Amino acid sequence: MAKLYVIGIGPGSIDNMTLRAVKAIEKSKVVVGYSFYIEILKELLEKKEVISTGMRGEIERCKIAIDKVREGIDTAIISTGDAGLYGMAGPILELASDIEVEVIPGVTSAFAGAAEIGAPIMHDFCTISLSDLLTPYELIQERIKCAAKGDFVIAIYNPRSKGRENYLKNAVKLIMEYKSPNTPVGIIKNAGRAENEKIVTTLSSIDYEFVDMKTVVIIGNKNTYIKAGKMITPRGYKI
Amino acid sequence: MAKLYVIGIGPGSIDNMTLRAVKAIEKSKVVVGYSFYIEILKELLEKKEVISTGMRGEIERCKIAIDKVREGIDTAIISTGDAGLYGMAGPILELASDIEVEVIPGVTSAFAGAAEIGAPIMHDFCTISLSDLLTPYELIQERIKCAAKGDFVIAIYNPRSKGRENYLKNAVKLIMEYKSPNTPVGIIKNAGRAENEKIVTTLSSIDYEFVDMKTVVIIGNKNTYIKAGKMITPRGYKI
Repeated sequence: MAKLYVIGIGPGSIDNMTLRAVKAIEKSKVVVGYSFYIEILKELLEKKEVISTGMRGEIERCKIAIDKVREGIDTAIISTGDAGLYGMAGPILELASDIEVEVIPGVTSAFAGAAEIGAPIMHDFCTISLSDLLTPYELIQERIKCAAKGDFVIAIYNPRSKGRENYLKNAVKLIMEYKSPNTPVGIIKNAGRAENEKIVTTLSSIDYEFVDMKTVVIIGNKNTYIKAGKMITPRGYKI
Repeated sequence: MAKLYVIGIGPGSIDNMTLRAVKAIEKSKVVVGYSFYIEILKELLEKKEVISTGMRGEIERCKIAIDKVREGIDTAIISTGDAGLYGMAGPILELASDIEVEVIPGVTSAFAGAAEIGAPIMHDFCTISLSDLLTPYELIQERIKCAAKGDFVIAIYNPRSKGRENYLKNAVKLIMEYKSPNTPVGIIKNAGRAENEKIVTTLSSIDYEFVDMKTVVIIGNKNTYIKAGKMITPRGYKI
């Protein structure tokens, strides 16, 4: 019976893929993905049928992949980061319960970004996407407030796009009702990729112009500090 | 200059390690870790000096690894899951800013567990550890309440041990002040390992006896549902 591999490829380099993800690509005859991520994997895809579509083509890609499996062909559909966080695992399982699906987890960009600036997460944390394409803005705001009140480390995904220039600024305003303006913040663009860029700063000093859709923003908890340019959240050990 | 690799090995099998993590092990002369995780990697460690210590030896292991690097030896210290979430990246950077450190991110058990029961996370989510060894219990409870109020998907780490038999039950009680007793819950033991076991159930029907320290518990949001035995949280696409 043919199988659909739903693969989290990690933040966007072959090196950050798991062995299991690489093997699943090897086992697949067809690989479906967003064109930008297909490009990243191209050296793994030489003998594959590759089907790529543009941004916002998520459901189209899912349907193409499911149809291939129904035709009896082992197929992979790729997600950046982890397939089960803002990825393809959900829509695939919503669309098809008649085929065999294996979800292969991956490294999400919060962890890839964190690794590049020290150890900013370390403790209870949450991820919040600021994209309101699929989520009511009021719910996003409510989650921001709850996360700040609970003093979670907060990793913000999709922080800023042309249509949502001020969403991050507004989120920071809500967060500062609970967290100090001196709370350390890490801003990482292209986390896990060779061309990554990063800034370690504080809540009140964010350079919003630096932030785009390929950026993850990590906001510390009340114990987070900056040492030698690294952002560190203590786990609580006596050091 | 010698380097310290702080490696998230993923949930506990070589297959779930990233290529980058495997390469960092290869580059290291010394590998330091908790004995249980060293055992998992043993086929990668044949020509290495391996230093393992028992549970709760975290700071001892960090100091040993740092000393090796100060002696000029490339060294790896391993964490299960992601090194930057409840892992070794924090204490290493707290202890040593005089050596070169590279943090290598990995797949955390929430994602590995999620992949085994469908797509239960998919949307804004948080992780909360119920271990109060290093965190005041009041803060843990406050975070549980905030996460439930914000309708986050909640991944609970360290849910239950002999000394903390009722912490998960108490957490569920707090969560049910905000979430329906019918909210889907996934319980995964040994996520990402061959011997994994899992249950998909609801908040009011958790089998607490099944849960131990090697278990991750994933509690859905208000849109999460169960279909064909899989737990699915919709991302919000029109399907």
